[in-house]
Amino acid sequence: MDGMLAIDFQTTPARYRHWRIEHDGDIAYLIMDVDAAGGLIEGYELKLNSYDLGVDIELNDAVQRLRFEHPQVRAVVIKSGKDNVFCAGANIRMLAKATHGHKVNFCKFTNETRLAIEDASENSQQIYICAINGNAAGGGYELALATDHIMLVDDRRSTVALPETPLLAVLPGTGGLTRVTDKRKVRRDRADVFCSIEEGIRGAKAVEWRLVDEVVPNSKWKEAVTARAHEIAARSDRPVKAKGISLTPLARKVEADRIAYSHVDAEIDRTRGLVTITVRGPSQAVPASLTAAHALGDKFWPLTVARELEDIILHLRANEAAIGVVLLRTDGHAQAVLDHDDFLAKAKDDWLMREIRHYLKRVLKRIDVTPRSFIALIEPGSCYAGTLAELAFAADRSLMLTGTRKGDNREPAAITLGAANFGFYPMGNGLTRLETRFLGEPDSISQGMAKIGIAIEGETAAKLGLVTAAFEDFDWYDELRVMLEERTSFSPDAMTGMEANLRFAGPETMETKIFGRLTAWQNWIFQRPNAIGEQGALKLYGSGVSPNFNKERV
Amino acid sequence: MDGMLAIDFQTTPARYRHWRIEHDGDIAYLIMDVDAAGGLIEGYELKLNSYDLGVDIELNDAVQRLRFEHPQVRAVVIKSGKDNVFCAGANIRMLAKATHGHKVNFCKFTNETRLAIEDASENSQQIYICAINGNAAGGGYELALATDHIMLVDDRRSTVALPETPLLAVLPGTGGLTRVTDKRKVRRDRADVFCSIEEGIRGAKAVEWRLVDEVVPNSKWKEAVTARAHEIAARSDRPVKAKGISLTPLARKVEADRIAYSHVDAEIDRTRGLVTITVRGPSQAVPASLTAAHALGDKFWPLTVARELEDIILHLRANEAAIGVVLLRTDGHAQAVLDHDDFLAKAKDDWLMREIRHYLKRVLKRIDVTPRSFIALIEPGSCYAGTLAELAFAADRSLMLTGTRKGDNREPAAITLGAANFGFYPMGNGLTRLETRFLGEPDSISQGMAKIGIAIEGETAAKLGLVTAAFEDFDWYDELRVMLEERTSFSPDAMTGMEANLRFAGPETMETKIFGRLTAWQNWIFQRPNAIGEQGALKLYGSGVSPNFNKERV
Repeated sequence: MDGMLAIDFQTTPARYRHWRIEHDGDIAYLIMDVDAAGGLIEGYELKLNSYDLGVDIELNDAVQRLRFEHPQVRAVVIKSGKDNVFCAGANIRMLAKATHGHKVNFCKFTNETRLAIEDASENSQQIYICAINGNAAGGGYELALATDHIMLVDDRRSTVALPETPLLAVLPGTGGLTRVTDKRKVRRDRADVFCSIEEGIRGAKAVEWRLVDEVVPNSKWKEAVTARAHEIAARSDRPVKAKGISLTPLARKVEADRIAYSHVDAEIDRTRGLVTITVRGPSQAVPASLTAAHALGDKFWPLTVARELEDIILHLRANEAAIGVVLLRTDGHAQAVLDHDDFLAKAKDDWLMREIRHYLKRVLKRIDVTPRSFIALIEPGSCYAGTLAELAFAADRSLMLTGTRKGDNREPAAITLGAANFGFYPMGNGLTRLETRFLGEPDSISQGMAKIGIAIEGETAAKLGLVTAAFEDFDWYDELRVMLEERTSFSPDAMTGMEANLRFAGPETMETKIFGRLTAWQNWIFQRPNAIGEQGALKLYGSGVSPNFNKERV
Repeated sequence: MDGMLAIDFQTTPARYRHWRIEHDGDIAYLIMDVDAAGGLIEGYELKLNSYDLGVDIELNDAVQRLRFEHPQVRAVVIKSGKDNVFCAGANIRMLAKATHGHKVNFCKFTNETRLAIEDASENSQQIYICAINGNAAGGGYELALATDHIMLVDDRRSTVALPETPLLAVLPGTGGLTRVTDKRKVRRDRADVFCSIEEGIRGAKAVEWRLVDEVVPNSKWKEAVTARAHEIAARSDRPVKAKGISLTPLARKVEADRIAYSHVDAEIDRTRGLVTITVRGPSQAVPASLTAAHALGDKFWPLTVARELEDIILHLRANEAAIGVVLLRTDGHAQAVLDHDDFLAKAKDDWLMREIRHYLKRVLKRIDVTPRSFIALIEPGSCYAGTLAELAFAADRSLMLTGTRKGDNREPAAITLGAANFGFYPMGNGLTRLETRFLGEPDSISQGMAKIGIAIEGETAAKLGLVTAAFEDFDWYDELRVMLEERTSFSPDAMTGMEANLRFAGPETMETKIFGRLTAWQNWIFQRPNAIGEQGALKLYGSGVSPNFNKERV
């Protein structure tokens, strides 16, 4: 039985209300046709292809399924199913009604979906094109910005626009400001003009300003889009004859304080504001062959774990705001995890194994931007090896038990490094988690590499800097109790800000700028009366009344 | 007559209440000894060497004067003048009382001062050391982090600490989080622990965790600090026998709607929320020799302009919050500016000329992080050449008049590029303003270089991408009027967030991370009830009452 979740991130094409996919050989058309009456929450209509979190949950699902279920698709064309309108962006009434927390979480998820589109283009060679047949405003244009090639119909009417600032007193926060300057490399003063005008820019000027890649006369639109899609598809290395796998419904059981999947479960302690997520290692041996792995489909352990872990993280973010601390545990055999990693590494040219690695990378990145304190517990019986060791490195802290426990005859806890820890899963900043961790002591990376495949127990792990601290059983519970009492007593906001800084040591990329610089400013604006107050632009939009701004600059 | 300014950024050592400087050959001791009764605003006592903006205005002045007035100083030791306490950081009562705008502006200025310390160490070879003789907490430790070498006395009592998060529910926002991970390269989980404990870390552990460079037993403290200062001074290339210049009081005249300096003036239009800053080119020919330039002291035009421009920017930020738009104008002869730039370039190995260039760099960087919309107006009679052309490139937009005006027989307006535009003044992101501007079209840089020294008029400047738009006189006033009406009608918060994103295209550095990622998160937290509400940690600090946090994570 799957109990009700307030917001469920799982869906299937059969349940889509806002998107449809049409296939034409190696091209897929991802068509946005939002059902105005299909809002996730009561109280607003999704007019003009505007969207809310529900629309983006479907988009995320579609992007994901195209990669796994349709290996033959080499180019994806995003277009609108409505006449004369491409997409009006995030629904403004929804934003005006939503709590601060919901707004922030909504923006985070939509940002992740757009990054997933870029990841598909770059790393899966399933290359996205945007065919803007109508006005693309705000989030609508930001969706286009996530694709590799933007086409705009030249019908003297269709424009691209980022009108958030003049119209709503907020930022184009789904990567818009960052992608305009850093991806499209629009000159900063032109970007300033573009982001200040409600009506947007069209035609040749949109090309000259680098806002779109080409404009096409209305009369030649359909052929031009098809031709461009074929041309771009020809660049891709995806296997035309491969057979996709099905992403079947998750084995998920929801109870009041527990959510259980096949290899992941989460025990929620609402009194203490804690959740314990346990990730189980493979229960079966590694498949005998690539064919056997394909035959397992979404029951192949690395894929199963990625899906289940992603779902629980998204669930906690959206539905359990008051749970501030996540304890991470693993359970199983290190060697079985490493065997699966090896399998992924050896089959790296196989399209499905490549997808799975990139998917695991994205799930781990979701943890990096999740505003909860993650604490990894490394105890006997755990399997922090290779891919699962990344959980410990993604955590804000890791505690390791030294030696064994009385009455427990299992081996002492260990971390076992594998190839997966040295390049499978780069963070948003472009570094591996170990590179980020050891920014100041690069030798520690080579010391770690020298220990690949060796079970590293508590004291050694602490000495190598792989864990925050190692304790014997005698001290374990007190240390943990005190840490958790402290952590859950702190201001959740301060923790969010602190973690958003400490997790991203080293270089910044467009991706980290979106979650750091852009998002942080947007969150600030989302707190300001000029946007969200009773006289603020977001609240008054559409009322005919002009917002009354406090003119003080901060 | 110098009218009263609410907050004045000008001071002199004779007026210092919180700092003193002791000289010992090529070493200077910059001693913090805060006068508890000397707060800038009523209502709090600056106990335990805690600081407010007034304390930092003196520190900024001291750092600046050490560079210009004391070329012989090669190492600067920051220490405390009080026993058993180094510095308790920003004064908490002040933060609790201050408006949001004041808090943000205070943090910005203190961040700039710490970056100026790093700039002195790196670029002036006046290398800063911090000798922590007592507790260094919060902003106290952040001050230490800005130096090149941190020494901590090992007296079993003195610690370094960043207790903001557990104690006050805010971030160590004066670069603390960023410098811990990116400069000191403290491992992220250790940084997480360090930033979560009120009591700080001392002794050998502080060294092991990379928080300080060395700990020294109390008994050897004084000699060890002196020895280290001499050792570090020996690395510097500063001229031991050079004679400093005096930074004399600014020629400043303050009226209700006008502030006038010798080469800068500002006309404030409060009704429209505008200020027009006019920067005048050199009124005298370039000095005949380096000796003559030194003899001019702070009357040497590039230095005069840097000081005056800096003062007006700081004044507007602190005292004119409701003025959202800055119109920049220049007035004078392009060749005179270029001659001065050439002089600076040719004398680049002279310590004073080097100081002046770095100072101009820092003043231009202050514009980059000033939350006001800058619009450069390029009209006949202006002198946007070399150094002053950077004003146009620092602006959010630039408008240029094409051709001449009826009844005005001056030459058409021009931009004249010089060597100064190709490397004198890198932005915080490490790129020149032209490199940032032309991120997407690097050829434009070489096209610009080819035109060095040539007056580029309106149409050509627009074609080369050097200005946002060029208009003939016929359209000028309407275009400008509409633009200003629009700009001043927008939400000031949205403008601040937009500009903070669009101005920093391209790479991020530790410096831009401090103003982008860290500051933006801190500003968000500075709006959250968990920090600033009646039940928030900042308000309740010291009351004995525990804050009552809303536990929802955002």
